Amino acid sequence: MKILVEKANIMLFTAAGIEFVKGDIAIEGGKIKSIGKAPEGFTAVKKIDARGMMAMPGLINTHTHLPMSLLRNYADDMPLMEWLEKKVWPVEARLSEEDIYWGSMLSIAELIMSGTTCFNDMYEFADSVAQAAADSGIRGFVANTLFDRTRDGDRELSKTADLFHKWSKNADGRIGVMVAPHAPYTCSDDYLIEASKLASELGTGLHIHLSESRSEVEESIRRNKKTPVRHMQELGIFEGRTLAAHCVHVTGEDIDLLSQNNVCVLNNPASNLKLGNGFAPIEAMLQKGICVSLGTDGACSNNSQNMLEEMKLAALINKGIAENPQAMGAEKVIKMATLSGAKTLGIAGLTGSLEEGKAADIILVDMGAAHMQPVHNMSSAVVYSAQAVDVDTVIVNGKILMENRMLTTINLEYIKKKVLESACRITRV
Amino acid sequence: MKILVEKANIMLFTAAGIEFVKGDIAIEGGKIKSIGKAPEGFTAVKKIDARGMMAMPGLINTHTHLPMSLLRNYADDMPLMEWLEKKVWPVEARLSEEDIYWGSMLSIAELIMSGTTCFNDMYEFADSVAQAAADSGIRGFVANTLFDRTRDGDRELSKTADLFHKWSKNADGRIGVMVAPHAPYTCSDDYLIEASKLASELGTGLHIHLSESRSEVEESIRRNKKTPVRHMQELGIFEGRTLAAHCVHVTGEDIDLLSQNNVCVLNNPASNLKLGNGFAPIEAMLQKGICVSLGTDGACSNNSQNMLEEMKLAALINKGIAENPQAMGAEKVIKMATLSGAKTLGIAGLTGSLEEGKAADIILVDMGAAHMQPVHNMSSAVVYSAQAVDVDTVIVNGKILMENRMLTTINLEYIKKKVLESACRITRV
Repeated sequence: MKILVEKANIMLFTAAGIEFVKGDIAIEGGKIKSIGKAPEGFTAVKKIDARGMMAMPGLINTHTHLPMSLLRNYADDMPLMEWLEKKVWPVEARLSEEDIYWGSMLSIAELIMSGTTCFNDMYEFADSVAQAAADSGIRGFVANTLFDRTRDGDRELSKTADLFHKWSKNADGRIGVMVAPHAPYTCSDDYLIEASKLASELGTGLHIHLSESRSEVEESIRRNKKTPVRHMQELGIFEGRTLAAHCVHVTGEDIDLLSQNNVCVLNNPASNLKLGNGFAPIEAMLQKGICVSLGTDGACSNNSQNMLEEMKLAALINKGIAENPQAMGAEKVIKMATLSGAKTLGIAGLTGSLEEGKAADIILVDMGAAHMQPVHNMSSAVVYSAQAVDVDTVIVNGKILMENRMLTTINLEYIKKKVLESACRITRV
Repeated sequence: MKILVEKANIMLFTAAGIEFVKGDIAIEGGKIKSIGKAPEGFTAVKKIDARGMMAMPGLINTHTHLPMSLLRNYADDMPLMEWLEKKVWPVEARLSEEDIYWGSMLSIAELIMSGTTCFNDMYEFADSVAQAAADSGIRGFVANTLFDRTRDGDRELSKTADLFHKWSKNADGRIGVMVAPHAPYTCSDDYLIEASKLASELGTGLHIHLSESRSEVEESIRRNKKTPVRHMQELGIFEGRTLAAHCVHVTGEDIDLLSQNNVCVLNNPASNLKLGNGFAPIEAMLQKGICVSLGTDGACSNNSQNMLEEMKLAALINKGIAENPQAMGAEKVIKMATLSGAKTLGIAGLTGSLEEGKAADIILVDMGAAHMQPVHNMSSAVVYSAQAVDVDTVIVNGKILMENRMLTTINLEYIKKKVLESACRITRV
């Protein structure tokens, strides 16, 4: 469908930083055809009046466990092992494919309603997560979480390969599949190597949790005489494309290794704080040229999936820790939440910025709310003041998924009903 | 007006913690007449259907500079002194009483729309701030910021006394006035003592910035051979009721002094992080029995005045710093943002919790949004998942200030126009 977004303040990434131009965005065949002024003879089927709005690239959430919205606010303020053993795992053991679908749909509704156009997920029954993404119109990467200590690891790997082949031909190319061994402490070394080989064969990324908690690092040093990062590097895992979530407890040498091996770091500030893990040394990573992107982690350890919140938190926490108000400025945060996310997922040629020829993954942010006024600086406003409710319109791959805060592909009332049924069943003692 | 809030989940503070009862709240003469079941013969003029909503005490924001919303997003990511000298102070020098009124009104709109029913402010032209509070129906304390180094200190003190007497007779007792010397590093010792005496004479609190930045503490040690807290204590300032904002850089001995002298600490996590000051050791203060409440600080250093954001941030940052997921749990945060705020302001007999006989300062939070579902735990939900947009209805002193997200006393479009005019004028180079 030909769409014309009219009279927006359009966010552009230039060599000098972030700039805004006032103008139109013409969309055709799912792509951005022009920015600034529509080409002559361009007749839009749909026009969107974007006066008073900022058009910016859709946010990219690079670390999620979408179905965990079923457990939102279910178990908070608890020690990690008690949280996992007494609350999360017993409930997760009861999840069906259908539960996963409804939980994913609820999360996708939340993502769209807070301006996210692309996610990177890791969970059980990833086929259901992919189906929810396909049905809702959002862009995303899915992966089955792989363990070999408690399961038939080979069978899980072959299921991942099947999933990859199934979805690479579906949903207009919106759905990707990654290989996702859970973590170095839950997978054997051989299994990590196998998983890495599979990712390379498929030409996709390896998505893994790495150096999230202090105890994980201490355990690795006890067992392997080295940090988890060094261990992964020596196993050869980093020879493929690696996306490492968390990297909270990393040494200077770890940061060098991540940088030398082009490992992308998925930073989850809210989850890291909430679970008492601390905060990742993101500024140091960026200085070493590491590609750092932002994620919310699951709704059970955050308990939001709102990238705008995550952006503000990333800006605040890095300034506070460094005792430097210039650390992690608004423009840096915006790029972390958009273009760096796309680079991390290997799709920077396709999305992550507003450029002619890229996919039309665009959000319109209404700058008119009391909490945004007056708008002295649009980059600051979106990082420090914007709330999910300010996201007026969301377009993915040229299709409108939300307009004037109304979802177009998801019947939220129905999803809420189904989620409630699932949540009640799985948490029944 | 007699109001009946029907079928709400009502948040009650009990000895065991936070409990919820399902029922009605009857409001009469500005006060809560009953909780649970309306008294026989109670005929409400107005009934509010609160099915699916949580009724909780209105949030209390204990450290604000309301008119600074005029400078929201005006100067971010800058070193502190450059921020003040090149950006904030030159613009503040141009502010008129009228600008202050419109800036305050915009902030009050934001406060109400995010569930705050009471604030504690410090700024220039406090009479205009009080007028905005009076006109909007919100509860609040105002204070003229006092300096004596650049001004006639005595005249400022006498203006504060006049302000106190004027507003103590006005606006149904909703407006209080405090004495607010800016900080130990901007006021002479004698002036601090005079200000403290005035506060005691008036029977009101002394509101001051204290130990906000590392450099302030270092300067105090250089000049006075003691920390700002110890210095204040030795001057006798703490003999009156003292409300100290920030207290970020405090020693163990400072915390003991604050505790022994019943100083209330106003914690502003977002502002402390954003300006690169760090974070206050709140858990240690609470352990010593200090009354700690929450504030947003001004919109120029946050850049929101949203207590729900501040609550989540307080929970997250304290867990992260302590590397303990049990630190600063949801219930503790809720009390910090409500009852502890009322205690801090000396009005805990009047507000801060839902109790029969207290003022009807109540907010209704809609629990139905995608980002809140499913609601496994209401206290967790409001701290970790709620957004301003979930606040459906706000009642202060028995008067409805917002219903179904519509402000009843403020014409927001008009305020935005006036704010834009002021903001353009004062920031014109």
